[in-house]
This record gives sequence, structure tokens and C-alpha cells, in this order.
Amino acid sequence: MHYDAPSAGWQDEGQSGIWKYQELLPPVPLNRRVYLGEGATPLIRSVSLEKRLGLGELYFKYEGSNPTGSYKDRIAAMGISWALAHGRKACIGTTSGNAGAAVAAYAARAGLPYHLFVLEHMAQTKLAQVLVHNAQVRRVAGFGTSPEVGDTVFSRIFEAAGLKDWEVMITAFRYNPYAMEGVKTISFELAEQLQNVPTQVYTAAGGAGLFVGVWKGFEELFRHGLLSAKPHMVAVQSAGCSNLVRAYEAGAEQPAPGASTSQISGLQVPNPPDGKVALSLMKKGDGSSLAVEDEAIWEVQRQLAEEEGIFCEPAGAVSVAGMMKALQGKEGNRSQRVVCVISGAGFKDSARLSAMTADKPVPLLPADGLDI
Amino acid sequence: MHYDAPSAGWQDEGQSGIWKYQELLPPVPLNRRVYLGEGATPLIRSVSLEKRLGLGELYFKYEGSNPTGSYKDRIAAMGISWALAHGRKACIGTTSGNAGAAVAAYAARAGLPYHLFVLEHMAQTKLAQVLVHNAQVRRVAGFGTSPEVGDTVFSRIFEAAGLKDWEVMITAFRYNPYAMEGVKTISFELAEQLQNVPTQVYTAAGGAGLFVGVWKGFEELFRHGLLSAKPHMVAVQSAGCSNLVRAYEAGAEQPAPGASTSQISGLQVPNPPDGKVALSLMKKGDGSSLAVEDEAIWEVQRQLAEEEGIFCEPAGAVSVAGMMKALQGKEGNRSQRVVCVISGAGFKDSARLSAMTADKPVPLLPADGLDI
Repeated sequence: MHYDAPSAGWQDEGQSGIWKYQELLPPVPLNRRVYLGEGATPLIRSVSLEKRLGLGELYFKYEGSNPTGSYKDRIAAMGISWALAHGRKACIGTTSGNAGAAVAAYAARAGLPYHLFVLEHMAQTKLAQVLVHNAQVRRVAGFGTSPEVGDTVFSRIFEAAGLKDWEVMITAFRYNPYAMEGVKTISFELAEQLQNVPTQVYTAAGGAGLFVGVWKGFEELFRHGLLSAKPHMVAVQSAGCSNLVRAYEAGAEQPAPGASTSQISGLQVPNPPDGKVALSLMKKGDGSSLAVEDEAIWEVQRQLAEEEGIFCEPAGAVSVAGMMKALQGKEGNRSQRVVCVISGAGFKDSARLSAMTADKPVPLLPADGLDI
Repeated sequence: MHYDAPSAGWQDEGQSGIWKYQELLPPVPLNRRVYLGEGATPLIRSVSLEKRLGLGELYFKYEGSNPTGSYKDRIAAMGISWALAHGRKACIGTTSGNAGAAVAAYAARAGLPYHLFVLEHMAQTKLAQVLVHNAQVRRVAGFGTSPEVGDTVFSRIFEAAGLKDWEVMITAFRYNPYAMEGVKTISFELAEQLQNVPTQVYTAAGGAGLFVGVWKGFEELFRHGLLSAKPHMVAVQSAGCSNLVRAYEAGAEQPAPGASTSQISGLQVPNPPDGKVALSLMKKGDGSSLAVEDEAIWEVQRQLAEEEGIFCEPAGAVSVAGMMKALQGKEGNRSQRVVCVISGAGFKDSARLSAMTADKPVPLLPADGLDI
């Protein structure tokens, strides 16, 4: 592996994407920065929901335009660059889908082998997005159903990574805090795009890394005196996997136990690795948490596609569904400047796309009977 | 329909995306500009092919990060904004896939109904990307196989559009020159990103609108004195549908007739609507054309995913395949600064993704036998 980032012309790759904010990221030499066009995602103002909810301003931070279609590309860009800078010879991890696609793309570009252990019953389409970048994938019997198998997989991964000096690319602050610093760039971009502080930022909370990372970004801007205030952060979960919400409501320090019954990929995390940190920042008043039913999430996914023109994956719509639940019927929304982070693109979940469109009529007409 | 583009904060939506270059686009009032995060796509420098080909500089302009995953979003943003500015009550058109998804998303955001007529045997996944934004889709018996039916559909579309004052959203200069002006923003971004003129720009040529639009962008920059030179433009086709290449080689003014045997969606255009314009600009020395076999295109698609970390649709890889065919084994490549436009994201063609990954081994291991 002899990766050297190419030096470009005006748009130096080492200065674009997440590296626009290099002063606030872990240091990586210019020639080790792996760039695929991550970050600089659009901030899209609502044309429909804002009015319906009577909000002052409502924005969608659309992470689906990242190179592999989700915010995980920011983490992969940071983590793989970091791994290269530290001479790692490979990376290793697990994934439920989006993280794997992101790490596989950046590892391929960097010339690093990617050893990936996945659930026994991983969906074929999620698997394909990893395999296309030539990741070395192995399914593990019982992984995803047996907690003991999960423990075994994690301890084997960390053991092998330690012995071989590989980078552990599991997208949680608990497992790779350096890589996760990439998430902060969402907040940095938001502050620049709005030239202002949002009053509230809603994010999905599966493993809770997105929520913690966006909070951390605003926290750092605030502490450096670059922002005059911080937004209130809201972690939105599926009611079928609401371990943070229940712990938050009970004032607990650890996520509440309980299996996931949610059908939504990315939100099915019974034991969120960054849950404790998320709860601690809620406790000191920086955030809160609420849950919405899978059906409500799917309904909002449909509304976003039909009314706002934004087609996201179901896990990308949960932030918006949570915002609607929190604000509907409330007074005083006019004073609010709300951002919902839409974590990934609609194509990520092709089964859901089929389900959304299967019953829409597409009549077959004869050419001489085109009644327009 | 009472669309008013929302006025945003610092990043005014009416100034972002294609509207960064409003001085060189058809005029549209600020409150009629429909924005979904189109444009501002990454320019990614090669880490693998550049060295292998001995090129001075090789860049990929990755259009897959547009909101619906292809460069057609630039056309849809321009065309739907233009339609709104002119009081149209709906839009109408045909599509083989990507254009439909783009127009459907922007029309949904603008609150404009989209009447769409598609091939009798349109692939279900392409259809779903249109239906999710609630386009009114009708299949037409014999459309795609019978030339007479094609003529009937087009004349009915133009007749209805004229009577009802609807916008015809067919993505070709021949049918909607205003919308197609959006393609020029690819060239404007390239000139800014490189701060220089590419020596050669390779694009796919299906209907030839992408090729003509990118040429037009550079031509305008050159004529306005903003660039000191123009790149040589290369239109790359599938050998299975090489009507431009054959006409170019014969010195003809019209695309050569002949049915398509290409398997690649987006390149199967036996009678390219912008073919005549494309041939005329080749004739005056601004461009040339060549063809590559479908198998070579698929092979390059695989290489881009495995070596560069870029997963594009097959039609997105054709520009790179053409460049490789043109330059391989040649001397003097060191002096060249080459750009290949990658027109769309890999998820656009899910059947191809399955085919690419179906034979990659994914062993199932017992948890106590993880040999890492």
C-alpha cells in the first residue's frame, strides 16, 4: 500500500470536503487525506412542511448527496485518512449497511484491504454496496440474533486489530473516536450555511454517534467563541427501538435494555454504543429524545418525496417525523429556526422504494388512445 | 400552484446550485428558482488510472452526487424554474430513466404535475424512482420498439403542451433548449475547480445533449474571454449504438441510422436528438467521437469501484472507457489534463449492481471459527 493523495489544482483535494475544517479535526498530513467528494452537502429549505407547521424556518441537511449516499462518508474519510497517516495496513469492522458502503469505498481508494463481519441475514442490496468496492466480507452464524455471538465478534475484531495493527472502523465514538470526529463537519457546514445558530437540530439516533457528533461540532464552535449560542439537540428513535428515549424519560445514565422491533435499517440498535454519552449531554440540558412509530416515519418519507422533492431512506426521515411530533399543535413555532438532518438517500433501501411505489397505477395505453 | 422559493439565510437557495452562474443562464426571478442541492459536484483526481496511463492529470467530474443521482438534475432545476417563471401549470415528457427521476423530484417540489409517457417495458426500478415523486406515468404499447409509435407519442406530447401551455421536459436541446442550458454549469464548475482549461473532456453520448451542453459551457467562457482556450471534446458511445461515431468517421452531417444493440441504459438512443449539433461542432474541430464495447464499459465500471472508490452507473463509466481506449499505448500523455464526466451514480442500475457482486464469495462462518 503506497497511497499518496494526488495534488490537484485550485481545488486541492486535501482542502475540500471535511478538510475545509482541518483546524478542528485530528491532524492528517496532506498526502494522506482520502477525498471522494464527501461533505459540502446541501441545506434545503422546506417549501411545504414549514408552512404547514407554522415554523419560522425549517431546513433539511441532505446527507444523501455524499459519495456513497449517507453521512457515514464523513466518518470514513476521516477514519481512513487517519489510518493511512498511522501506517495501518488494513481496516476491520462490522456494519448494518451504510457504514460498510462508506468504509469500503474509501478503503478501496486508499488501497487498504477492508475485513468486514456482517449479520447472518444481511440484506442482499446492502451487501452488494460493500462488495462492489471489493471488501472482504464474511457472514457470522448467529450474529444479529445472539448477544453472545455479537460479543465474540467484537472481541475477535479488537484482538486481531491489536495484533496486526489494523484500524477498527466501527462508526461509534466508543470504538473509533478519531473517525467519528468527521461527523462534526455537519455542524460546521450548518453554521456557515445558516450564518446563524439553529434553535433546534433533530437527528436520528440508532447507535447515537450522529447525534453526539453533531452536538460536539456545535459545542466546539460555541467554546471557541465562533457561535453565540448552541442549538437544542433532539435524538429521534423508532418506537420499536427506543432505549435512549426510555432512559432519558427515566433519568437513567445508560440506555434502557430491550430488543428492537423496528423494521427500519439503521435504527435497529438495541444497545447504542454512544448512548451513555448521548444521555449525559441530555442530562446537562443540551438535548432531549423522543420516539416515533415506524408507520409515521414511512409516512414522512412519502411526504418528503411528494411535497419537498427529497427522496431519503426511512432512517433519514425519522428526524423530520420526530420534529413534526414535537411541534405539531404547539404555539410559538414562528420564532424557531429548525434543522433536520436527513442521514441518507432513498436508494439505500430498495425494498422500501418498491413498497412505496408498488400500488401506484401505471396504465398501459395504446398509442392511438393517448388521452392527455 | 403557488410556488414561491423560500428565502434562506446566508446560503440563499436562489444563488446556490446552478444559480451561482445566473449571468450565463436564462433569466428566472429569485422566487421561481427551484433548488434541491443540484450542481457543485466534486472533481475527484484519479489515484490509480492516471499513473497507469501515464497521464499528466486525470480527473473525474462525479455527477452522481446530484440530488437524484445524475447530471439530469441540472437540467430539471433549470427547466422547472423556467417553467414556473413562465406560468406553466404542468410539465410533460418521456424518459428512459434518469431524466424522469430528476424532473419528477423538481416538479414535486415546485408543485407542478408531471405527465410522463414511458416505454412499454421500462425497468421497474427506473419506474419506481419516478413514481416516488408522484409523477403521473403512463406506459405506451409499442413505445420503444415501433418507430411509428414513438412519432405518435412525441406529436401528442407537443400538441397537448401547446394547447394547455405545459412545459415539455424532454432533455435535449432540440426539444427544450432553455432547460438544457443547465448542463453548461458542469463546464463552469470545471473551469473554477481546475482554475485552468482541460486539454480534453470526455462525456457519454446517448442523445448527445450532455456532450453539446458541456461544449457550449466552455465555448461561452472562451467567447467571454474568461478562458484562454477550449478543451477538445470527445463524445463516447457504446459500440452497440454508435450512430454518432459512424457519422463522424464518414464526415456526415446527420447521425448514421441503425438500431441499438447496447445493453446500457442511457446509451440506447438510435436517433440522438442533439446528434446533428454534436456532429457540426466536431466538424469545425472542437471535438471527436469514438465507441467502446459494452464489456469494456462494464470492466471500467468495476475498476472505478475497486481502484478509485467511485461507484457509478455503466453509462457513467463510458467516458472513462473511451478515454482509456483513446490514450492507451500512446506517447505524450504527460502533457495532458483530462476530465471524464461521470454522469450518474451506481445505484441507478440495480440489476448491474447485482450482476457485479453476485459471484463475490461471502462465506458464512461459525462465531467460534473466526479466522482473522
